[in-house]
Amino acid sequence: MAATKLKNPHLDQMTTDYLYHLNIAIGDTKNSKSLQKQFGDVKFICMGGTGQRMLMLAKYLRDNLQFQDGGSGNGDFINLTESGHRYAVYKIGPVLCCSHGVGISSMSILLHELLKLVKYAKCKDPIFVRVGSSGGIGVNAGTVIITKDAYNGHLRNQYELAILGRTVSRPAKFDETICKEILSCANKDDNFETIIGNTLSAECFYEGQARLDGASCEYRNEDKLKFLEECRVKDIKNFEMEAVMFSALMHHLDVKAAEVCITFLDRLEGDQIKVTKQQKEEFEKRAFIIVGRYIQYKLKQ
Amino acid sequence: MAATKLKNPHLDQMTTDYLYHLNIAIGDTKNSKSLQKQFGDVKFICMGGTGQRMLMLAKYLRDNLQFQDGGSGNGDFINLTESGHRYAVYKIGPVLCCSHGVGISSMSILLHELLKLVKYAKCKDPIFVRVGSSGGIGVNAGTVIITKDAYNGHLRNQYELAILGRTVSRPAKFDETICKEILSCANKDDNFETIIGNTLSAECFYEGQARLDGASCEYRNEDKLKFLEECRVKDIKNFEMEAVMFSALMHHLDVKAAEVCITFLDRLEGDQIKVTKQQKEEFEKRAFIIVGRYIQYKLKQ
Repeated sequence: MAATKLKNPHLDQMTTDYLYHLNIAIGDTKNSKSLQKQFGDVKFICMGGTGQRMLMLAKYLRDNLQFQDGGSGNGDFINLTESGHRYAVYKIGPVLCCSHGVGISSMSILLHELLKLVKYAKCKDPIFVRVGSSGGIGVNAGTVIITKDAYNGHLRNQYELAILGRTVSRPAKFDETICKEILSCANKDDNFETIIGNTLSAECFYEGQARLDGASCEYRNEDKLKFLEECRVKDIKNFEMEAVMFSALMHHLDVKAAEVCITFLDRLEGDQIKVTKQQKEEFEKRAFIIVGRYIQYKLKQ
Repeated sequence: MAATKLKNPHLDQMTTDYLYHLNIAIGDTKNSKSLQKQFGDVKFICMGGTGQRMLMLAKYLRDNLQFQDGGSGNGDFINLTESGHRYAVYKIGPVLCCSHGVGISSMSILLHELLKLVKYAKCKDPIFVRVGSSGGIGVNAGTVIITKDAYNGHLRNQYELAILGRTVSRPAKFDETICKEILSCANKDDNFETIIGNTLSAECFYEGQARLDGASCEYRNEDKLKFLEECRVKDIKNFEMEAVMFSALMHHLDVKAAEVCITFLDRLEGDQIKVTKQQKEEFEKRAFIIVGRYIQYKLKQ
């Protein structure tokens, strides 16, 4: 069990810090007692697109894992970063449930700031889990997919980021042991499938995911189907917009991480998401069930 | 004056549509009377990162341009897309004020769906304006910057998007006539500077913008300063995370667009944003003033 080490020697020179998008000021980076008191027990950082879904997850964990309430003292949850106006962070027992918005850039900011938060709060070996939504490829809507390798839109299994004007490529893969541990949390009598597969993170929901229904589209249905087939050959089971950066940053920093997504549709059957509100919530809950069991399993170790 | 034409022949085959992230269903794409009634008068679509800032902008326009209230009938504003849980959209007179979240991917989804909205609502010649925040390069904090050319993180003046696994490059520039019209809305006796310049859109707020204070940083201060100097040579006046996609998509679709950003700091002086809440609001209002005058000017034409 070790405190989180980051790969930035400049941080050692900073006596104060300001997590701008979370609106959290760190008065003493070396010994922030209030941060350690508030966040020091955190072992799991769950993340998903919307604040509404993350609040649902926090409530699910409270009700099913018998954690203490979310910080208000009256059973209600408080968004701890509301004053930042960008992300929502709820705390339930040793779990943070955080919204990351849409896409690589939005989630990247949250990750950089949460990573510094767990470092300053001296959290021990935290595990970051994205609990996301996605579009499936050749799998039934409602399938839970645990990501192994993440691909970018160029069908390359790496994250390519421009740093100081030059491309830096980083391996984009999740820890296989954690993948398998999460898979082992699926039960035979679940009324849904849970599988391990690869994930493609597109920069664009429409043209980037080969949809035909965006404001711009310059390819034919046959071209789209050919691309989806190329994805299938690489065992890509779903499209979303974050995994390639998420896996690469965490792998680069040697921080434990996993991704568990629900699929809302099978892209081989169409582009538009047609699940009802009720179906959507039931599907989302499937990912909560798997991640909830995984948290219980790890806490018992 | 013409209705918005998009570049997607597949849309002509769709009798219904669903703007998923806005949670707006279109029952009849050819003649959506309710959409035309609600949004048909829209002439300006203003966009910014947070819902809170966009609500402030809507209130500013109501109070300063004498527009009618925001749809509730009692002077309050309603977030018209609240049920989508991702973006906020306020309407004030002929203006929509919409939050786009952080980064290219998040804003791209909003744009695709708003572009289809103005098409189905038969809006005439709408103008899209991003009213953003940014970090300046060699300009005083609080300067208003109107973007001319947008650069990606590789210092290339184009947007590079992976479509069907291949890179598609699109020119990333805003209409110069609109830039100059907006600049002409600055007054000599404003207590702030308004300038035209180029903008770099980074994928990452930390490593992508040469900051030294992220969770990961593998370059030295000298490397950072050299990169900022490379940017200055290209007349890049500010860093943000959206302009390169925004300008390219609108240019590709031949839809009018502009970007007006406030700067919160000068990156030559540091990485952390240190403005007080009060200063921040005063700076944000500067962009509102310029965009408000531009809207008044266009409505009088």
